[in-house]
Amino acid sequence: MWKELFLLCLASGTALCGYPYITPTQGQVWPRPKEVQTSQTYFKLEPEIFNFTVKAHNCDILELAIARYSAIIFSNPSDRKRDVTRGDTLKDENSALPITSLDIVLTKECEKYPYLGMNEEYEIRIAGSNNVGTATLNSTSIWGILRGIETFSQLLIPDPEPPTYVVNATVIKDGPRFPHRGLLIDTSRHYLPLLHILYTIDLLAMNKMNVLHWHIVDSQSFPYVSDAFPNLSLKGAYSQERLYSADEIGQVVAYGALSGVRVVPEFDTPGHTLSWGPGQPGFLTPCYSGGKPDGTFGPVDPTNEANYAFLKTLLTEVTQRFPDRYIHLGGDEVSFNCWESNPNITDYMKKANITGDYGKLEEVYITKLLDIVTNLPTKNGYIIWQEVFDNGVKLAPDTVVHVWKGGWQEELAKVTEGGFKTLLSTCWYLDYISYGSDWRNYYDCEPFDFNATSAQKELIQGGEACIWGEFVDKTNLIQRTWPRASAVAEKLWSPEELTKDVNSAAPRIEEFRCKLVYRGYNVESLGPSFCPGDNF
Amino acid sequence: MWKELFLLCLASGTALCGYPYITPTQGQVWPRPKEVQTSQTYFKLEPEIFNFTVKAHNCDILELAIARYSAIIFSNPSDRKRDVTRGDTLKDENSALPITSLDIVLTKECEKYPYLGMNEEYEIRIAGSNNVGTATLNSTSIWGILRGIETFSQLLIPDPEPPTYVVNATVIKDGPRFPHRGLLIDTSRHYLPLLHILYTIDLLAMNKMNVLHWHIVDSQSFPYVSDAFPNLSLKGAYSQERLYSADEIGQVVAYGALSGVRVVPEFDTPGHTLSWGPGQPGFLTPCYSGGKPDGTFGPVDPTNEANYAFLKTLLTEVTQRFPDRYIHLGGDEVSFNCWESNPNITDYMKKANITGDYGKLEEVYITKLLDIVTNLPTKNGYIIWQEVFDNGVKLAPDTVVHVWKGGWQEELAKVTEGGFKTLLSTCWYLDYISYGSDWRNYYDCEPFDFNATSAQKELIQGGEACIWGEFVDKTNLIQRTWPRASAVAEKLWSPEELTKDVNSAAPRIEEFRCKLVYRGYNVESLGPSFCPGDNF
Repeated sequence: MWKELFLLCLASGTALCGYPYITPTQGQVWPRPKEVQTSQTYFKLEPEIFNFTVKAHNCDILELAIARYSAIIFSNPSDRKRDVTRGDTLKDENSALPITSLDIVLTKECEKYPYLGMNEEYEIRIAGSNNVGTATLNSTSIWGILRGIETFSQLLIPDPEPPTYVVNATVIKDGPRFPHRGLLIDTSRHYLPLLHILYTIDLLAMNKMNVLHWHIVDSQSFPYVSDAFPNLSLKGAYSQERLYSADEIGQVVAYGALSGVRVVPEFDTPGHTLSWGPGQPGFLTPCYSGGKPDGTFGPVDPTNEANYAFLKTLLTEVTQRFPDRYIHLGGDEVSFNCWESNPNITDYMKKANITGDYGKLEEVYITKLLDIVTNLPTKNGYIIWQEVFDNGVKLAPDTVVHVWKGGWQEELAKVTEGGFKTLLSTCWYLDYISYGSDWRNYYDCEPFDFNATSAQKELIQGGEACIWGEFVDKTNLIQRTWPRASAVAEKLWSPEELTKDVNSAAPRIEEFRCKLVYRGYNVESLGPSFCPGDNF
Repeated sequence: MWKELFLLCLASGTALCGYPYITPTQGQVWPRPKEVQTSQTYFKLEPEIFNFTVKAHNCDILELAIARYSAIIFSNPSDRKRDVTRGDTLKDENSALPITSLDIVLTKECEKYPYLGMNEEYEIRIAGSNNVGTATLNSTSIWGILRGIETFSQLLIPDPEPPTYVVNATVIKDGPRFPHRGLLIDTSRHYLPLLHILYTIDLLAMNKMNVLHWHIVDSQSFPYVSDAFPNLSLKGAYSQERLYSADEIGQVVAYGALSGVRVVPEFDTPGHTLSWGPGQPGFLTPCYSGGKPDGTFGPVDPTNEANYAFLKTLLTEVTQRFPDRYIHLGGDEVSFNCWESNPNITDYMKKANITGDYGKLEEVYITKLLDIVTNLPTKNGYIIWQEVFDNGVKLAPDTVVHVWKGGWQEELAKVTEGGFKTLLSTCWYLDYISYGSDWRNYYDCEPFDFNATSAQKELIQGGEACIWGEFVDKTNLIQRTWPRASAVAEKLWSPEELTKDVNSAAPRIEEFRCKLVYRGYNVESLGPSFCPGDNF
């Protein structure tokens, strides 16, 4: 009955019934791998007799990945129609050789935590000989193995004779274009429950993104629980049910590591700090009106020496909880009004011989902050928003400058001319929603689209999609972020020459979006469509 | 411990910890009732001993409403902080008189189905005498009772001593400004599972909206199952799992009636009909290139007489399944290109003496369609998109013209000058998302903001928010629609003079949004904030 109905649909001249805005691909991988060769020979996989087999090095990360992917690898429902109009040569699935294992060959020992520049290359071979099909995944690093398992999971095409899957004979050689491929989340404007942060890490991994940039506190709320300074969250969190304890932070870091996702915290100062004030008197600058404090506060008070001791203790704790070498120190959007109103600051600047030059006052603060971080026991490198560079602050040579403002092409040129590593976010502010297929705008933003030498361009580490939290909380985080962030994921993973044509990407991102839906993630749609195997 | 923490937050000078973008109200009603008088006297309600009591007429609708509201009336968690900084006089909840019942006085018999112009007025009195608190809800219609129960449920303020609620002494006299307050959903661009349509009806009722405009089919897919013409959905639906059977349609209609929500179907013709084609050969116009049909299709073929018999049978079935007196017949965006290319149509027009005038051809079709509908056994009235009026088609006197295009002020003037009832949607296209607090734009759109006599303005029946489905499916329907549609809900329910100030609406819509979250609906947020009683 079902097969007849399907053929009736076909007879009407449409590959699928109804008229979706696009016909999705089948068995393609997102992000697009560097090199893919397939042939029309198919192999079949039957879930009950398929296994991942570890052939060389093993470790917890690999074991847990196998457990994870064993659960999702067959989530693309096997009673889905396979579109037989595509002219494939496979007429009888029964003649396809079976593949019963993905042999995982990790040729070096596992590493524990992901890091900037880790090896993420891998190779997959699916072939047949002697009446047997074999599938092999090779990498010298556990991170490459993780990327390869994700790729393999996307190759499987459900077959109408359930519960079988077919996969083409395939050779894939893959590795990322950029080493830093991130997503910024914001847990200050809205608290995000732990579960939603873990879902986000799942989706990052499926998109081969490898950094969760956790903008954890800001002016609106301070959910980070500091054991050194408990009043910060006691008085600055939205509520005592909206916190991230050391334990929960550990969970996020560990969960990220399992998928090769670095968790990089941002403690943004001296601006964006209002919520720090109630729990740390003296931290913020009191603003003055009519000659006296008016009850409002501004950025960090750079003239209060106690603030630097406070920051040193706090950041020591932070960098012990977040094992990544990098910490993001913010430094964006510092308003000078409050400093200008405060007579103590005016006095300080007079003594320091910088009267009227509030950019210099900011530099005093930032310089001391960067110095603190450089000298932490964990010897961190730091990422800062572009203003710190723009204002001429002296930066350590391995500083990463995060470009987010308009005019990014000129900015990237300047930053890389100065010899600094850099990240691009400007064109990937996902919170700036608009009507229509805006994923195409994200896909069309080419990080190399600026005037510079190739040596300069090599300083681009990658970039980050940003889902700022003013209008985003648990009700719409997943929907608003994905699959729009997937456009950024491919731009940062796949070779430049393979990501120039957004129109050829469209059928592939549609297939990929449905895969994420089948795996249980409420990612938005990209146009009039349906995901055939989706059970409501 | 908890109380001390709360006081610490207060000591920091903020009514709530952290810095949400706005401080929500407590115990306010959305949409704002016509007349509200409250005093500082409080009464307390304890969930275990509170009941709804039917004092006069009863019926299924009322019994089921009581069951529904008994479940949600205490969903605003009673361990929430009540903000004691607001200067209320209640120092000791123990001295508040208890209210153990909402007495429901329906003074006339129930009606079965909601309809345009039904009475939705009600009065609520909460007062105390002789050491007893009483709460009474009065209305002459079941629809007013439903609106009043919803209002009552919003008055309750959770009290820190769980599980108690407090409510002010209150007199409310309320009724709607406009009789037609609707939401358009689109189940053609994306299929919407039944559950999500029922959730939508829940949210309509909580917003005192009373029309679900179901744009059920369109070019992309045809999910409506016709028993008379089974091939329509067999060949036109996205899949055979994405259908609305007669039974399911009956469920939606019945569920709507329980909450006083009319379910008005739209079968949009002659444009927007591609998906009708595969299942009804001859319905659509074949387009010609180079002298022969090129395989593509256009609008309905007005020259094929069989189409009118088909429409008559189909619409007879439709109007039997949807008991509302009104049916929406569409009529928007008819492209002439395909008609122009077709030689049979050219011949027809020559014979009919309308060569070259495709507007007239459209009029031929629409006139016959409207005539069919007028003569149906169910004697329907119809709603049409504004193009039908703009093109000068002769319309029945009680036609409702649905205004959706730019220049709505001029259009409303023209339509009402022609003596026709009208609905406004132009400024309330919720699918046109943009960054920021766009609910304010919806709130600022005043239907009476055009040049006309007051007699003309009385022809405005109300309006509809539209959540077209190109980019909306089950993953984001609730989030994208609400609470943005709530701005429209208040604009259409509350008196004009009470809805002029969007800034005073902001704290109230924030309170209301959290109430919807507590009731379990994933409605988006409106700015940096948190819902205090929300358990993740």
